[in-house]
Amino acid sequence: MDRRGPSLAVERELIARIATVYETWGFEPLDTPAFEYADALGKFLPDQDRPNEGVFAFEDDEEWVALRYDLTAPLARFVAENFDVLPKPYRRWAAGPVWRNEKPGPGRFREFWQCDADTVGSASPAADAEMIAMACAALEAAGVQRGGYALKFSTRRLLDAVMEKIGVAADAYSTRLVVLRAIDKYDRLGRAGVDALLAQGRKDESGDFTKGAGLDSAQRAAVLTLVTAGGGTRGEVLSRLGSIVGEAAIADLIEIDRVLTALGVADAEAQIDPTIVRGLEYYTGAVFEAQLIGGEGQSFGSVGGGGRYDDLIARFRGERIPATGFSIGVSRLAAALQAQQAAEADGPVVVLVMDQARVGDAFAMADELRRAGVRAETYLGSAGMKAQLKYADKRKAPIAVIQGGDELAKGVVTLKDLKLGERLSATVGDDREAWNAAREELQREVPRAGLVAAVREMLGQ
Amino acid sequence: MDRRGPSLAVERELIARIATVYETWGFEPLDTPAFEYADALGKFLPDQDRPNEGVFAFEDDEEWVALRYDLTAPLARFVAENFDVLPKPYRRWAAGPVWRNEKPGPGRFREFWQCDADTVGSASPAADAEMIAMACAALEAAGVQRGGYALKFSTRRLLDAVMEKIGVAADAYSTRLVVLRAIDKYDRLGRAGVDALLAQGRKDESGDFTKGAGLDSAQRAAVLTLVTAGGGTRGEVLSRLGSIVGEAAIADLIEIDRVLTALGVADAEAQIDPTIVRGLEYYTGAVFEAQLIGGEGQSFGSVGGGGRYDDLIARFRGERIPATGFSIGVSRLAAALQAQQAAEADGPVVVLVMDQARVGDAFAMADELRRAGVRAETYLGSAGMKAQLKYADKRKAPIAVIQGGDELAKGVVTLKDLKLGERLSATVGDDREAWNAAREELQREVPRAGLVAAVREMLGQ
Repeated sequence: MDRRGPSLAVERELIARIATVYETWGFEPLDTPAFEYADALGKFLPDQDRPNEGVFAFEDDEEWVALRYDLTAPLARFVAENFDVLPKPYRRWAAGPVWRNEKPGPGRFREFWQCDADTVGSASPAADAEMIAMACAALEAAGVQRGGYALKFSTRRLLDAVMEKIGVAADAYSTRLVVLRAIDKYDRLGRAGVDALLAQGRKDESGDFTKGAGLDSAQRAAVLTLVTAGGGTRGEVLSRLGSIVGEAAIADLIEIDRVLTALGVADAEAQIDPTIVRGLEYYTGAVFEAQLIGGEGQSFGSVGGGGRYDDLIARFRGERIPATGFSIGVSRLAAALQAQQAAEADGPVVVLVMDQARVGDAFAMADELRRAGVRAETYLGSAGMKAQLKYADKRKAPIAVIQGGDELAKGVVTLKDLKLGERLSATVGDDREAWNAAREELQREVPRAGLVAAVREMLGQ
Repeated sequence: MDRRGPSLAVERELIARIATVYETWGFEPLDTPAFEYADALGKFLPDQDRPNEGVFAFEDDEEWVALRYDLTAPLARFVAENFDVLPKPYRRWAAGPVWRNEKPGPGRFREFWQCDADTVGSASPAADAEMIAMACAALEAAGVQRGGYALKFSTRRLLDAVMEKIGVAADAYSTRLVVLRAIDKYDRLGRAGVDALLAQGRKDESGDFTKGAGLDSAQRAAVLTLVTAGGGTRGEVLSRLGSIVGEAAIADLIEIDRVLTALGVADAEAQIDPTIVRGLEYYTGAVFEAQLIGGEGQSFGSVGGGGRYDDLIARFRGERIPATGFSIGVSRLAAALQAQQAAEADGPVVVLVMDQARVGDAFAMADELRRAGVRAETYLGSAGMKAQLKYADKRKAPIAVIQGGDELAKGVVTLKDLKLGERLSATVGDDREAWNAAREELQREVPRAGLVAAVREMLGQ
């Protein structure tokens, strides 16, 4: 997708604001190349059974290289390579494009941006709590009002405890995965849909059949009791969960709650929600998801998520290196915010060129404006005044600056208020009287020496 | 190459400053995908005879796609696709990584960043002058002092005129290209080296032979007269060039000089230099190069360049669409500036954790500091005080905040001035008396409620 102008500027501004939060929290920037050796990336591919499925890969000097599909696998490779020189724990943030070799669809691109923060080398739930609190701060810095978002979190240990209780072995890998994915769909399918996926399977509206986990009814009831234990304050959910899975399985949630409280993060902002499991296999503990929330409390969907992945880096380096991270989907957040926001920003002031022999004068005027901090450009081309004004409209210019022969002789310039013109067109249409009444404001002559002051005044600076 | 911490921050800051200049001049941002269809990119490959040589390409759904090798070819494709809706002329800037499938070497990476500005749809030399003036403004915004850089420019029309005069046909494509590349090496090889390349060829120190253009001695003399016509003010060079190639061939240079003067760009900043030709084949008129200049006037090499390419977009779209652009090599500029700059920036304040049961207190302190605008983080881990102080050093923390049991009982915190400690280590070494004398400054107790004020005072905020 090509992106230009104001909508791109919104996304860039968003990343800059999120980055400022990350840096204020002590995270340092990291930039890794677009390519990694495929065997480093391939092993961690999310929810893919075959290596290299879903990535753009090719052979280079008899080694397979691939474009990164997220920012976590390159981080794991970087940490393993530089472990000895890094501060421990190592907090880093990164923003950049990632690529997925999948079928594109509406709103689903093969190249998109992620903006991640990760803490590597700390097993403490305090590090998870920090991720959650920082995600709240990042969303607020991005312009989401308090009450307009919720960080929902849980831990994989809850499901581990229930699976043990109902007699599904920890190494019954595929059953556990099917259960995980069933719970992940709770939002969309509800209790009955998840129950079907926990049993023999489910046929969706299109007729596609998804094979189930094959649990019996007592096993399913246990899983569903866990999944539906949410609602209310963090303390209320913790007490419910404690009686379902026991204190040991909620130890990390208790500690996360404690640190969130120390950081001043209220129940409204960060909630314990056992339906949150996240799709990626590699999470080992806490998992979290950021959702935008509408006026009536309904979710507008996820704009980010993350969790603890204590085993990922061990695949590069013998020893286990605990880690936790959070990723914001910048494009999705920008789209959601833009839908809420007002009209597009103004373009630059445009200085017209009435006489090609005097293009230098026009350049000098634009330059004076820029030196005073006003975005300004000179029209480049040989078209007449009408086409130049049309150009200025296309640039969303608030003001056009004109100095023809008459103005030059009088030592003045004409300033056309294009925004007022646009407003009049929209409100009074062709009403000649209304236009005449606004004549003096629509177009004014000012002394050449007073150009900058007059433009700044019109812009309300 | 992995890039982290302060050196990455320097590069990011550089791009942000350059972007601010581009936007102030009325250029709007554009972001195109990393991939393009290979037949769009391949045709424009710089100085490659075979299509697709030098790019990373692969087959996707029976279409070849390739990673962009610069930001100009994607711009040409974008403009051709969106010509009807774009303002004309269309000014855009873009920054991002590009990829070249070449042998990597020292300082030569297969992925690197470019930061470009282009004006599409104006044949006016004023657009070229704007590029030169804006490049000056961008370099100054990036921190290069006036006098520390020079924009050197020329036009391909000079060589066209000389080639015509000495009887080399305009369509003698390969001779023209060999002459172009010979002149491009003037900086490095000097007059004798270029003369050899214009004649039968030249053997370099490694013994490699480069075939020459095969010009006779009168032809070579004409080319060398042109190439050595530089030096002095723009006016002086223009008058010399006029007598060599005639007024018609310097018409665009005269106009560029005129607009530069209107924009207040002095001879010291922007110079006409006939040795500037730029290596890319596609330039059709003005060419420019930005060089960093040392104290004695010697060049530290190019940090950017560009020129007019009026035929490039026509390859996508029947009609000819004139264009001109400038590209800054961000990594090279950052490296050059960093070499000039002072020590690395401070890291965040680090709050130590003396008692794992009170990690919440440490988080609350870090959070108070952040809310006051101080970068701060909590140590995450279970190591002892010594290891935590070592961590703080590794993070380049200016201050460590400590609250053990004693401090807690007294309602105070201890602030350790790590920068002063570092300075003392460097200056007085093991001198016990000097350390004792500085004791009170090295480490001070402040009331818990006065934490933020004391830290800000120590940081000089």
